[in-house]
Amino acid sequence: MMQVVNLPERTSWNDLLQRPFSNNTDIAGKVKMIVADVKENGDTAIRKYTSEYDGVAIENLLVPAAEISNAQNIIPSELKSAIQQAANNITLFHEQSKFSYPVVETMPGVKCWKRSLPIEKVGLYIPGGSAPLFSTLLMLGIPAKLAGCSEIIVCTPAGKDSKVHPAILYTAALLGIENIYCIGGAQAIAAMAYGTETIPMVYKIFGPGNRYVTTAKQLVQIEGIAIDMPAGPSEVVVLADATANAKFVAADLLSQAEHGADSQVLLVTTSPEIVKAVQEEIAIQINSLARKDMIRESLLHSKIILLDTIEQAIEMVNEYAPEHLIVCCNNDEIIAAKIINAGSVFLGNYSPESVGDYASGTNHSLPTNGYARAYSGVNVESFMKTITYQKLDIPGLQKISNTVITMATAEGLDAHANAVKIRLNV
Amino acid sequence: MMQVVNLPERTSWNDLLQRPFSNNTDIAGKVKMIVADVKENGDTAIRKYTSEYDGVAIENLLVPAAEISNAQNIIPSELKSAIQQAANNITLFHEQSKFSYPVVETMPGVKCWKRSLPIEKVGLYIPGGSAPLFSTLLMLGIPAKLAGCSEIIVCTPAGKDSKVHPAILYTAALLGIENIYCIGGAQAIAAMAYGTETIPMVYKIFGPGNRYVTTAKQLVQIEGIAIDMPAGPSEVVVLADATANAKFVAADLLSQAEHGADSQVLLVTTSPEIVKAVQEEIAIQINSLARKDMIRESLLHSKIILLDTIEQAIEMVNEYAPEHLIVCCNNDEIIAAKIINAGSVFLGNYSPESVGDYASGTNHSLPTNGYARAYSGVNVESFMKTITYQKLDIPGLQKISNTVITMATAEGLDAHANAVKIRLNV
Repeated sequence: MMQVVNLPERTSWNDLLQRPFSNNTDIAGKVKMIVADVKENGDTAIRKYTSEYDGVAIENLLVPAAEISNAQNIIPSELKSAIQQAANNITLFHEQSKFSYPVVETMPGVKCWKRSLPIEKVGLYIPGGSAPLFSTLLMLGIPAKLAGCSEIIVCTPAGKDSKVHPAILYTAALLGIENIYCIGGAQAIAAMAYGTETIPMVYKIFGPGNRYVTTAKQLVQIEGIAIDMPAGPSEVVVLADATANAKFVAADLLSQAEHGADSQVLLVTTSPEIVKAVQEEIAIQINSLARKDMIRESLLHSKIILLDTIEQAIEMVNEYAPEHLIVCCNNDEIIAAKIINAGSVFLGNYSPESVGDYASGTNHSLPTNGYARAYSGVNVESFMKTITYQKLDIPGLQKISNTVITMATAEGLDAHANAVKIRLNV
Repeated sequence: MMQVVNLPERTSWNDLLQRPFSNNTDIAGKVKMIVADVKENGDTAIRKYTSEYDGVAIENLLVPAAEISNAQNIIPSELKSAIQQAANNITLFHEQSKFSYPVVETMPGVKCWKRSLPIEKVGLYIPGGSAPLFSTLLMLGIPAKLAGCSEIIVCTPAGKDSKVHPAILYTAALLGIENIYCIGGAQAIAAMAYGTETIPMVYKIFGPGNRYVTTAKQLVQIEGIAIDMPAGPSEVVVLADATANAKFVAADLLSQAEHGADSQVLLVTTSPEIVKAVQEEIAIQINSLARKDMIRESLLHSKIILLDTIEQAIEMVNEYAPEHLIVCCNNDEIIAAKIINAGSVFLGNYSPESVGDYASGTNHSLPTNGYARAYSGVNVESFMKTITYQKLDIPGLQKISNTVITMATAEGLDAHANAVKIRLNV
């Protein structure tokens, strides 16, 4: 089912590691039109596209508070406990990354410092579609709360019954998020970017979505609305040596493949036995899975790659820069230290990707499509920005004055030099 | 010269604080064409546009090592000392922000941690044009080096003599940056995004530029190349009460205005005396400045705004979110603590913006156009990304298994649940 590539030449790696082609230019015109319409016509446009694309006529765009608080009565207590446990772990991990910065006196009398502040207004997009992704709400809402954002809104499409799934509402209530708008698609992104009569504008938009959502996020980003990161289909690399367990590896590959037909899964291994055993295990396990048709499609553009050495395998992983990397190898921690491009890494035979997707504590909003070369996953700092400060006293300004005047003059900016001179009467 | 607005109604603030309109849609088609041509035809296209737009025929795109090392013999020793002093201060301030993260055991047997890593390949764009912006090379090159980026390249347009200004070459040599390509404009951005025969591709592009450069950065960003931040014209707000010195305030406004005809400067004050005195001082000081014509244009869309109280003034500053904020007030530090949207803040009567532009130690690559609401200035972390890790042992996986299985099942992802079950034989 998966293509097997044995000992490929180094020169063929680039082609081998291409992601399945995805191109949104076909919908760019349509998305541009939706975004412009929402900017111009606000709620009226929102309702129009929600009816057109989602097939639902929404009366209240804002989910009523009573519906949110009632969600806890609807969902099973086992699910509530699971969400709470996941929320605890995610909070524990994310709250570690708060920083305070020292005042640095770069020269006597020249004090510089930095302050981290929450982005005031943020919007979280939670996809609807085939599943209620309450886990994504945990992954975005918890760092937003920890950062201290004062206005956190959520947009998520309603189902055919015009309702938002109670698990999403329960999760929002658990996190103390009150403003949930039951809209989705490009129109939701435009609403958060520009604001409408009902939906407040935000400064940064987070969250995954389909091609319409992704294209809309790119469009509003050009106009200066910040977004979390560019998006692409989800992916995993399993890096395995002979010590890996083929059953587990197959289950991990299948779990990633069920995200969507455009997901890509790669097995990179130094063991011919693993190549064979994993193929057999996939063939067995796939039959019992609900999403087997989607998985089969995804496996069509997935690969099993056999390499000579672990060093080559590490090099290949770093070149591919996977969103998720599972290292099922002897010396997993030594290997992990050599990984320089990846979103989130799972070490050893008992760390399946699904624990990170839900509950280990790390964030599951991660850079896909090789973006891990330059982007981080979502974290508390994604919801913050820094301001720098400086304060000079007169001796400090005197000490630094020659440097500033000389440089400004060399750059041809004499008013810059003058702002120093005038203060020192030179 | 500057428009004076006395005690505006709160409802008029939004209109009052609009930035001078700037729109790049007129050049979008042309830039798209340049970028596509460079992607397709590499160095040939680069040479074509460099000849067409910059009017220079470049033989070697790469500046020869001998030319870089010779720069120190060309520029005056006073300028060398100034650049060294600035580099020291910038290094001192920026090196404070390196973090190590603890391992967090979110549940017994579930270990999560995070690692900060340099982005391997980064490109720095240094504009040419009216001035050799070696200060910008300091501001981008120092954090890139501190982050530990292994491949740092610089693109900067050559002058009419086909040479890069020696002050830029000297600064590069000082920072240990060897690969400088003498090209500019949209074609330089495309070269760094896709690579050509001569110019290596990078993962993230930094640096300011004209409308062509900005538009090209936006275009390649859509294809997944990271960029530092969106760009707009430079700007300053001076927040002044009656304790401010009108001479200094005028000099600061003028120094910002000399950046370009599209720069915006605002004086927000609670003192009618300051309104009057600053106008008089501007009228006097402007006459002796080399760039007075450009400054006059810039002042046409700049404003002096008189407000009743400092609290209102702080609110207005936060709504405008200036790139630079100079606080010339009694209680400047108390006011600074209430600022939530700004790029860099200058406190007191002896901290002109020009010290931060060159040498105080803070970065001068800052968010313009209100982007300070969501973006930080360039810092060491701008050149890094983080990878998260998790490692579970069998008891850890057992402990977390119910949570993961319950959540995956509720999201309709049974292969995710299965990756846990198969490891525990449940």
